[in-house]
Amino acid sequence: MSEAQSSVAPPRALVTGSTGFIGSHLLRHLHEAGWEVHVVMRPNAEAAAQPSYVAGVHPYTGATSQIIEAVERSKPDTVFHLASLFLAAHTPGQILPLVEANVLLGTQLLEAMMLSGTKMLVNTGTSWQYFHGEQYRPVNLYAATKQAFDDILAYYADTTGMRAITLALFDSYGPGDPRKKLLRLLLDSLRTGETLLMSGGEQQLDLVHVDDICSAFLRAATLLKNPELPSPLTYAVSGGERMSLQDVVKVLERAAGKSLGVKWGARPYRQREVMDLWKGPAMPGWKPQTTLAQGFRALVEQE
Amino acid sequence: MSEAQSSVAPPRALVTGSTGFIGSHLLRHLHEAGWEVHVVMRPNAEAAAQPSYVAGVHPYTGATSQIIEAVERSKPDTVFHLASLFLAAHTPGQILPLVEANVLLGTQLLEAMMLSGTKMLVNTGTSWQYFHGEQYRPVNLYAATKQAFDDILAYYADTTGMRAITLALFDSYGPGDPRKKLLRLLLDSLRTGETLLMSGGEQQLDLVHVDDICSAFLRAATLLKNPELPSPLTYAVSGGERMSLQDVVKVLERAAGKSLGVKWGARPYRQREVMDLWKGPAMPGWKPQTTLAQGFRALVEQE
Repeated sequence: MSEAQSSVAPPRALVTGSTGFIGSHLLRHLHEAGWEVHVVMRPNAEAAAQPSYVAGVHPYTGATSQIIEAVERSKPDTVFHLASLFLAAHTPGQILPLVEANVLLGTQLLEAMMLSGTKMLVNTGTSWQYFHGEQYRPVNLYAATKQAFDDILAYYADTTGMRAITLALFDSYGPGDPRKKLLRLLLDSLRTGETLLMSGGEQQLDLVHVDDICSAFLRAATLLKNPELPSPLTYAVSGGERMSLQDVVKVLERAAGKSLGVKWGARPYRQREVMDLWKGPAMPGWKPQTTLAQGFRALVEQE
Repeated sequence: MSEAQSSVAPPRALVTGSTGFIGSHLLRHLHEAGWEVHVVMRPNAEAAAQPSYVAGVHPYTGATSQIIEAVERSKPDTVFHLASLFLAAHTPGQILPLVEANVLLGTQLLEAMMLSGTKMLVNTGTSWQYFHGEQYRPVNLYAATKQAFDDILAYYADTTGMRAITLALFDSYGPGDPRKKLLRLLLDSLRTGETLLMSGGEQQLDLVHVDDICSAFLRAATLLKNPELPSPLTYAVSGGERMSLQDVVKVLERAAGKSLGVKWGARPYRQREVMDLWKGPAMPGWKPQTTLAQGFRALVEQE
C-alpha cells in the first residue's frame, strides 16, 4: 500500500467458506488488494491455521446469534458468501446438511446484514441452476438449494436496500486444489500413466482459473459500491473457452507434452449430465486473464 | 360408503400440518370423502388426541429418516403438505424454525416420496409470494421460504416424474379457528362492544371459508390423478369476493344485525401491507360454495 492510501481505513470484508478452494484463494486476493479480512467458520483445526493477515475469525456452529455477532464485530463493508455444501448427487442423509449449508446459513447472514445495516453482498451461485437453458431448472438438489437461497436473498434485497451480486460459477481449477475432481484424475494419470475410463467426453466444460474467479469477486465488490445498482443481479463467471471434455484433455496433453491414456465411452454419462452450458449475462468490466493453456501449463509444472 | 365402493381399497392420504386450522378440517373432509388418513406430526399432546378415524400417526422430531419411515409405512397415494410456520413478521430467533418448517421438512418429504415412488403431492403456498403483481415478490420472509420450497419442489418434479399442485392461499376463516386473527378481533368486539382501533381499512381481503379450501385440496388430488398433468402447477384459491377490510366489516355487521365500533385510520398500515391482491390462475373444476354473508352468519350464530 502507498503512504497516500494507508491514511484511509481499508475496506473490510467478511468471508464465509474461506477454507474452501476458492475461499482460501479469495482471502489472499482480498489481502493483496488492501482489504481487512474477517472470516466466519466452524471452530476446527483450520480455524487455528488461518493466514496471519486474517483480522478476525468468528466462530459459527449453527446459531443465528453467532452470525449476528460476527457481522456486528467485523463491521464489514462487503460480505463475500462462498460457504456451501456441494454435492453432485445427494443421499437422504445429506438433505439436512444441504439445507443448513445452502439455505439456512445464508439466511442467517442476510438477517445479520439487515440488523447491522451492511449493504453489500457478493454471493456464490452455480450455472447448474440453469440446466439446458436460460430459465431456472436445477441439475441437482445442490443447485435447487442455491436457487432457494436466491429467493430469500430477493426478499432481503427488496426490503432492506441491500445490494447483492450472485456470481454463477462454472468449473474452477488452479494451484492447491484439494478436490477430487476430474482434473485431479487427469493430472494423476499424467504422472502414473494409468489409463482412465471416461464417459463419451462430449459434455461441454467451462473451466475458469481460480485467480480469475477471485478477480470476479473483487470486481463485483467494486460494482456494488454504486448505490443505484439494481439488486439482486446475477452474472455468469465464464472462462471464455468452452469446449468438450475431449478437447480439454487435448489442451492438457499439449501443456504436458505427452499423451494421456483415456478410453472414451467406457463409462455412461452421469444422470442429467450437462452437455450444453448456460449462457448467462457477463459482468461488466471483468474478463478472465488466464487461458486454459497457460493455466494447465502452470499446473503441470507444479506437479 | 356404499357396498359397491367398500370392496375397493380407499385412497390413502398422508397429511402434514394436520393440527392446524385448515389441516384439522382437511382430515375430516378426507375422511368423509372415503380416504384412509395418515398424519405426520411432532409427538405431543395433540398427537394423542387425533380423531379416531386417523389410521396412522407418524412421529417427526426433525430427522429425514422419520419422514421416510412415515411415507414407507403409510404408503400414501397422495401427500397433502400443509405444515408450515406462518409469521407475518419474523425476529432473528425465528430464522431457524422458519427454514426448518418451510424448507427442510418439505424437502425431506419430497425425498421420502421419491424413494417410495409416491407420485402425487398437494402443496400449500401463499398469495404473499406475489406482492403487487404476477411475479415472485415476497411480502415477508415467510413467503420467501415458501418460494424457496417451490424451487426445491421443481427439482423433484423434474427428476422423478412426481406430480404436484401448489395451492396459493389467501385468507381463511371458519368454525373453530383458534388463530388470533382479524376476524377473531371483530367477533370479540361484536360480543363486548369494545371499540377497535384499525388501520385505514382500504387493504383488499380475500377471505375463503375453510370448507371451500378443503374442497380445493380434494379437487387438486383429483386433478393429480391425470398422469399427463404438467407439473408443478400453482393455483390461486380465491373466495371470489374480494373487498376492502372496511367492506368486510360491513358484511359482518349485516350478518350480526348490529354495528361494530371501529375507528378507521387509528393505526398505521403494516409495513408492506398488501393493498391489492394477486390474481393467480384458478383451478379448473373448483369454485367456492360459501359466500362471505353465509359464512359470517354461521360464525355469528356459533358465537
